[in-house]
Amino acid sequence: MQDMGARARSAARVLALAPAEQKSAALLAMAEAVERAVPEIIEANATDLAKAEEAGMAASFRDRLRLDEGRIRAIAGSLREIAALSDPVGSTVSEWTRPNGLLIRRVRTPIGTIGVIYESRPNVTADAGALCLKAGNAVILRGGSDSAASSGAIHRALQAGLEQAGLPADAIQLVPVTDRAAVGEMLKGLNGAIDVIVPRGGRSLVERVQSEARVPVFAHLEGLCHLYIDRAADLAMARGIAVNAKMRRTGICGAAETLLVDETVATTHLVPILDALREAGCEVRGTEDVRRLDPKALPASDEDFRTEYLDAIISVALVDGVDGAIEHIARYSSHHTEAIVSEDAEAVERFFRSVDSAILLHNASTQFADGGEFGFGGEIGIATGKMHARGPVGVEQLTTFNYRVSGSGQIRP
Amino acid sequence: MQDMGARARSAARVLALAPAEQKSAALLAMAEAVERAVPEIIEANATDLAKAEEAGMAASFRDRLRLDEGRIRAIAGSLREIAALSDPVGSTVSEWTRPNGLLIRRVRTPIGTIGVIYESRPNVTADAGALCLKAGNAVILRGGSDSAASSGAIHRALQAGLEQAGLPADAIQLVPVTDRAAVGEMLKGLNGAIDVIVPRGGRSLVERVQSEARVPVFAHLEGLCHLYIDRAADLAMARGIAVNAKMRRTGICGAAETLLVDETVATTHLVPILDALREAGCEVRGTEDVRRLDPKALPASDEDFRTEYLDAIISVALVDGVDGAIEHIARYSSHHTEAIVSEDAEAVERFFRSVDSAILLHNASTQFADGGEFGFGGEIGIATGKMHARGPVGVEQLTTFNYRVSGSGQIRP
Repeated sequence: MQDMGARARSAARVLALAPAEQKSAALLAMAEAVERAVPEIIEANATDLAKAEEAGMAASFRDRLRLDEGRIRAIAGSLREIAALSDPVGSTVSEWTRPNGLLIRRVRTPIGTIGVIYESRPNVTADAGALCLKAGNAVILRGGSDSAASSGAIHRALQAGLEQAGLPADAIQLVPVTDRAAVGEMLKGLNGAIDVIVPRGGRSLVERVQSEARVPVFAHLEGLCHLYIDRAADLAMARGIAVNAKMRRTGICGAAETLLVDETVATTHLVPILDALREAGCEVRGTEDVRRLDPKALPASDEDFRTEYLDAIISVALVDGVDGAIEHIARYSSHHTEAIVSEDAEAVERFFRSVDSAILLHNASTQFADGGEFGFGGEIGIATGKMHARGPVGVEQLTTFNYRVSGSGQIRP
Repeated sequence: MQDMGARARSAARVLALAPAEQKSAALLAMAEAVERAVPEIIEANATDLAKAEEAGMAASFRDRLRLDEGRIRAIAGSLREIAALSDPVGSTVSEWTRPNGLLIRRVRTPIGTIGVIYESRPNVTADAGALCLKAGNAVILRGGSDSAASSGAIHRALQAGLEQAGLPADAIQLVPVTDRAAVGEMLKGLNGAIDVIVPRGGRSLVERVQSEARVPVFAHLEGLCHLYIDRAADLAMARGIAVNAKMRRTGICGAAETLLVDETVATTHLVPILDALREAGCEVRGTEDVRRLDPKALPASDEDFRTEYLDAIISVALVDGVDGAIEHIARYSSHHTEAIVSEDAEAVERFFRSVDSAILLHNASTQFADGGEFGFGGEIGIATGKMHARGPVGVEQLTTFNYRVSGSGQIRP
């Protein structure tokens, strides 16, 4: 592992200087190599699937693991999309001139080496590798043992693309899954070789990474997202957003888990919204005052308001206006994504200024919490920390910066 | 300590909403309170000085500790300067509209609570407290025991100013110096209450903080700054910059410690520059090839190139052009500040793109590595990490951001 770290560091030095065109060429060559390798990848995937069946894994698990030609072509398509993104490295974030004539520019630079630890989805191998490369970073990938053969086959295609474009194959390294100590060593940073860790997977993985990592981590433990319906909300809009925020896809981190309704409009807005949710197949759990107005609601405990269901269930509470919503969110939020529906600009501003979450939305569904929807052209994850990256982590968030100061002989008096 | 953390968190929630004018008013009231307290601060300082003398501390140490009326008025002046800075909180860093009509804004927000751990300089109490406040953060200060009485007196004035402006006194808390376990607890983050630690002090303090902290740290361990004289350098400019970079003040982190000279111009440039350094009172230590051209130079060992002298000594080596300089810096640099003197735009660009340090300068002295010189209006320190803050850490770097998305009922298809 220490050797992988040293090789990543030296690849990172080459990548930091690689022109944008060379990185794009590598990404396009990687896409072609993935397409050429369709038979090998499917064969490797069959090995993983056979093991999963032998181990008695659930059908849903095996579906996430399965790669067919369509899915492999989608991986190649996503590599081409990342190739087409604008290159963040070397772009000037801001610049100003000092009274003494010094021109100071703040310029984006690669971070260095990213460690990505993920579970069974083999497509993360390509997505994470490509996003890191685009930002000029080397990456050390550690996939799950369940998808080892599939990830290995994809990884070989990625390295073929790198070599074809004249970039070091060590820019994207895959840790042999047989190395059981690898995760622990990566979390310690491989002696300074890893700058950031990105975990991609379930709660227990993220929890372990967050508690053990000795290097910065870009991650979110959960997305306990709130939707607040203000007294000044348009009912039809509120209903549409509530159903979409909860039910469009229930298993993603941007799905709403709790609905807060301003008690002032509870008699008019609550039941229509809860009915619409139930019609869409959602189980509704409410506090006692919710159930007084809507007896069809099941009871909600305090634990419900702490639960990221990732399922067709929603917890509902009445609150005392926007301040009540802000207070509830401060108590229960995972600092991921929260939304307000309101036509009152002052209430919206108060919500925006007071809620301490990565993404705040006004009159829009929480399910927009996604790098693609933000226009980032893909994301390596969503971060709820406040340092460096917050919200969707796209190519730009995988860079850092330095100051480049241009003078004409200035000395400091 | 856990209670201080909880109180900081709750003060931080108030600060995050405080209008810019209220924070400025508090800073101005703090300045007035400091000036009113001149007699008390001098008296407290006399206690600290007496203890230092009793303990046999060096005169230079006691000088750093000493506060007279002039120094106390300077503290008040610096509070007024910070009051006059523009408020970063709520400013829009960037904004764009998506094809579906969603307007996405990236807006600066406070980080939360900053922990500042410092040594004997009592003025850090005011500077760090004020910078954190300006950025909307609560701060927990832990000063050195040597300056406990002085820091306590300054801290009382700061809290008086906060209260006068209607802000919570807990926005700036000072850890009782009798609490020996405080530093360790702060480094663990006080149960999630501290978001970032900033150490201000000598190498051993920074080393301890960096190795023990379980929260992000903004710091630099050392400033082993390099000055490279390229073959295309103007000799007079190179000489002026070398003398200033090394000798203006030798004890600051932006002082140059190593001079690298392109071997192509060694016969013309080396001796005049080294003579100028010696004339300014600097001891010159060179490699063997340097000493062949300049026999007055003392010998330099490999250890010299790893040493931050913070004194009137410089290590000198010849390198094979800009690539040789880049390679030397990659091996020895502390990633703080490096400068190139050259009239060759291509060499400068290569240096800027290849050297991985927070601050890179072209034709200017390394001593400009300073938040004030950057126009930040003060700094809480200089960071050499790559996450979030890099280079001078001013008010803006003490903020984070969130995304505020404005829609008109958009749902995700």
